[in-house]
Amino acid sequence: MRNIKLTLAYDGTDFAGWQVQPASSTIQGTLASAIGRITGEKVLAQGSGRTDAGVHALAQVANFQTESVIPEGNLLIALNDILPPSIQILAAEEVAPDFHARKSARAKSYRYRIYREAICPPFRARYVWHYPYPLNEQAMSEAAPRVEGKHDFTSFAAVDAERDREEISNVRDVFSSQWGRESSELVYEVRGSGFLHHMVRNLVGTFLLVGKGTLKPPDVTAIIEAKKRSVAGATAPASGLYLANVEY
Amino acid sequence: MRNIKLTLAYDGTDFAGWQVQPASSTIQGTLASAIGRITGEKVLAQGSGRTDAGVHALAQVANFQTESVIPEGNLLIALNDILPPSIQILAAEEVAPDFHARKSARAKSYRYRIYREAICPPFRARYVWHYPYPLNEQAMSEAAPRVEGKHDFTSFAAVDAERDREEISNVRDVFSSQWGRESSELVYEVRGSGFLHHMVRNLVGTFLLVGKGTLKPPDVTAIIEAKKRSVAGATAPASGLYLANVEY
Repeated sequence: MRNIKLTLAYDGTDFAGWQVQPASSTIQGTLASAIGRITGEKVLAQGSGRTDAGVHALAQVANFQTESVIPEGNLLIALNDILPPSIQILAAEEVAPDFHARKSARAKSYRYRIYREAICPPFRARYVWHYPYPLNEQAMSEAAPRVEGKHDFTSFAAVDAERDREEISNVRDVFSSQWGRESSELVYEVRGSGFLHHMVRNLVGTFLLVGKGTLKPPDVTAIIEAKKRSVAGATAPASGLYLANVEY
Repeated sequence: MRNIKLTLAYDGTDFAGWQVQPASSTIQGTLASAIGRITGEKVLAQGSGRTDAGVHALAQVANFQTESVIPEGNLLIALNDILPPSIQILAAEEVAPDFHARKSARAKSYRYRIYREAICPPFRARYVWHYPYPLNEQAMSEAAPRVEGKHDFTSFAAVDAERDREEISNVRDVFSSQWGRESSELVYEVRGSGFLHHMVRNLVGTFLLVGKGTLKPPDVTAIIEAKKRSVAGATAPASGLYLANVEY
């Protein structure tokens, strides 16, 4: 059996998220159909983690086992021919049998894009959160590093059952967290050991309250310590979020 | 009655074109619903011209008559709130009663984008024609200006009934026609007095044959002179085409 690692990008707008579901179009399900058409095998590639409905990926990583002898380069071309333009494989490589896209991951990075101009061009609307109202961007920049370090992120975790069984703790290590300006966009970049369900979108929703002046930067520290979802901000829209990188 | 001129941008991917149709989602129909909700009037804005299914606009122009006294600035904000993110109004202004978006137009510009890299990022796929195969871009550049000037463009006109009744001639004046490189994209820009149905996409399809070496640049002149649709190239996909500007 060969173990194949795929790096893939997708526009999540029209998908019900990563994870395969019976009646919905998902990234994992669409990928499984494409792999099945090429190898004749029924196999579900395991992702580095799930992405929610509408969330995008610049470089999601997934792996699957196959008996197929198709060279990686041909596999990449064949998959991209079959996959819709909204999902494309960026790299395919054979890896060691013990490589596991989720368990072997050492760090993940996410990006969140907020478009700040009054009118959002239709060509960008699917890929950002359009928020044209006043924000104290300096205060948001000051608040961002306050979530760095090893913390119990319960205040930023979705209150739902959608988590892996192995996840017995809400403690995660955030290596870096910062807001920056990229012309008309305010961009949040966060890198950490792993992220809870909805964690990045809940962080963004909380930083937005800082930008609006509802919260002050030190309040973010108090929110972490409270370990209570209700004290943090709302979940920011999926359209602005990108799984940017997975490190092994 | 006030005469309102709208400048609008749209992502045409999910629309059946500009012109209102009974059972399909169209730009003109969606715009009419939004205007109706604001003014209470049932009015169809007239565009500078139709765009086909899947074709985009950076700055389409349309006008409509209204009894409404809503200031233009408020109209713009209200329309953008109601319109889907895939259609947005860039400008709204009251104009002279005799302004007509189509009849008053003196020149139009179109852009056509071809993405040249092997893998097309999912975030760009809706907005380009992905053509990663070899092309002689120098030959395409040489061929482009050959369509400049006043010509009968029958060879590049769609063989169909979809044309305005007033259009009794296939003669059009092309002011400029050129191909250029914009990093990973090959971009065609054409400006003229007006364009026949499918004309820009048929020009692009013909220049592509020059890029592939099937035709030589001087053949483009012969194709114009033949006045026969069958001698020109195929119609390039809608996804790469943008109505870029309308001049009055």
